[in-house]
Amino acid sequence: MRLFLGVDMGGTRIKAGLLTEDGELLEKKNIPTKAERGKETALSNLTSLIESFSSNRNITAIGLSIASPLDPWNGILYNPPNLPGFDVFDLKSYLKDRISIPFVIDNDANCYALGEWWKGAGRGARVLLCITLGTGIGGGLVVNGNIWHGAHGLGGEFGHITINIDGPSCNCGNRGCFEAMGSSKYLMECYKKLSGKEATPDKIYKLALEGNEAALESFRLLGRNIAVGLASLCNALDPDVAVIGGGLSNAGMLLLDCVKVHFEPLLLSGLRGKVKLRLAELKDYAGVYGAAYLAIKSLKGGEA
Amino acid sequence: MRLFLGVDMGGTRIKAGLLTEDGELLEKKNIPTKAERGKETALSNLTSLIESFSSNRNITAIGLSIASPLDPWNGILYNPPNLPGFDVFDLKSYLKDRISIPFVIDNDANCYALGEWWKGAGRGARVLLCITLGTGIGGGLVVNGNIWHGAHGLGGEFGHITINIDGPSCNCGNRGCFEAMGSSKYLMECYKKLSGKEATPDKIYKLALEGNEAALESFRLLGRNIAVGLASLCNALDPDVAVIGGGLSNAGMLLLDCVKVHFEPLLLSGLRGKVKLRLAELKDYAGVYGAAYLAIKSLKGGEA
Repeated sequence: MRLFLGVDMGGTRIKAGLLTEDGELLEKKNIPTKAERGKETALSNLTSLIESFSSNRNITAIGLSIASPLDPWNGILYNPPNLPGFDVFDLKSYLKDRISIPFVIDNDANCYALGEWWKGAGRGARVLLCITLGTGIGGGLVVNGNIWHGAHGLGGEFGHITINIDGPSCNCGNRGCFEAMGSSKYLMECYKKLSGKEATPDKIYKLALEGNEAALESFRLLGRNIAVGLASLCNALDPDVAVIGGGLSNAGMLLLDCVKVHFEPLLLSGLRGKVKLRLAELKDYAGVYGAAYLAIKSLKGGEA
Repeated sequence: MRLFLGVDMGGTRIKAGLLTEDGELLEKKNIPTKAERGKETALSNLTSLIESFSSNRNITAIGLSIASPLDPWNGILYNPPNLPGFDVFDLKSYLKDRISIPFVIDNDANCYALGEWWKGAGRGARVLLCITLGTGIGGGLVVNGNIWHGAHGLGGEFGHITINIDGPSCNCGNRGCFEAMGSSKYLMECYKKLSGKEATPDKIYKLALEGNEAALESFRLLGRNIAVGLASLCNALDPDVAVIGGGLSNAGMLLLDCVKVHFEPLLLSGLRGKVKLRLAELKDYAGVYGAAYLAIKSLKGGEA
């Protein structure tokens, strides 16, 4: 039985899972990234975690999911916002000198989408469109099991489509981006405007479940924006499954219902009833699954 | 030398071109569709035009570009808005009974994009994103020479991404679609609002060239919206070339300059300077080229 390691490195934690070729998760582990201590610490934590799996086992290949814009063909990271000090960093060369097992690298949102396609809410989809909602919005597009990379490896940045040309400003410098109007930041802003109080997304979710009107209305406003962004992407790309994941998707059916009420009428008539809108299933370990699948696929010679 | 026929059937005219495998256009012809006389007339004009090429020549394969939402795998048209009476129509079966030459069918905007990829402004692009601006907005995405069809054959409907959630209503029933804010209809509305007069897009273009301020400002407003829609699509999909075609692109550099001034800053920082923004080159015959390439490619066994 061949073993594969999926590793998902974020700004806060590094997760890893040992998987079989069929996608059975045999063992998992996660440690803090300690990104705030700088590049060397984060990298040393990454390699230690890998070694903790590989030192006493024969691992066939490793897939690495990294929270960074990157060149997936050459494994070069471009200024990961949550990994301070990395700037432009050749992770592939760095790891080649330290790990003797074949590995592949991809962006975290891409791996998340691929994981959901392989073993989650997007199983069997021909075209899977996935958004991850959190502080920002990430995205991934999976076509017959292949990640859409675009021409420069930056494909799937769904957070930066404009949904309101005159909307609020976004971290990217533009106005009315999907990310500025469909992320947890927007939820918190809505709630503050409606209630006069500050609260975390988790707290607003709890309040909404208890029937708090400001919290419910905040989710309704957020849901409409998510529906607009998602339907735009679906109209452009015609997926058969659209998956909502990321931290905000922990609001589950409450969030999904707020999106669904607007989503279907926003689709082109030819797509209505044809795009399955689902919550992510693998959640925290979607990236680990996706990274492992990437490793498995790399051995088969296809570009994942 | 093998010969291929590219045919492009719109609501107004049917165009056809005889091409070599290398893309040399040997002969072209166009006739009125007479769509207003109904389905039988339009179909009979289509088959007559094909026969006028095939009766005295050995044509290897035919590509058909049709102004209709369609199922490209089964050649079924879905309610083409400018071909009255077609409703849902199995064009593939209809033509199989009448034409003995192998043929393939695709949507007109897809063929337009493929034509520009093969012999126009998108030559050599890894990922080509093409929009056609006219009364509406069509789109096509070409990836390594393959048309992006999506899961149901409706991929590339770029006119129906939302660029302003609170914007003007669109023919599709929603608000603020790219089509409602980036097409010639919007240009005419702007000009009317600014000048109090009605004018065709051609007339507004002429006035703009003469320095008419209302006409110039109409192009500026249109250009901003086109930039927003195009940059959204580029941020999501990461093409290396984006092509602007369709009737409105006859406004050439005037239009392109109005788009360019907004386009670059709207791109994600990683894409700035990397997406080539160009006007379509083949114009009226892009669809014919694309359809012919589709025919050539179908013989090679690849899905175009």
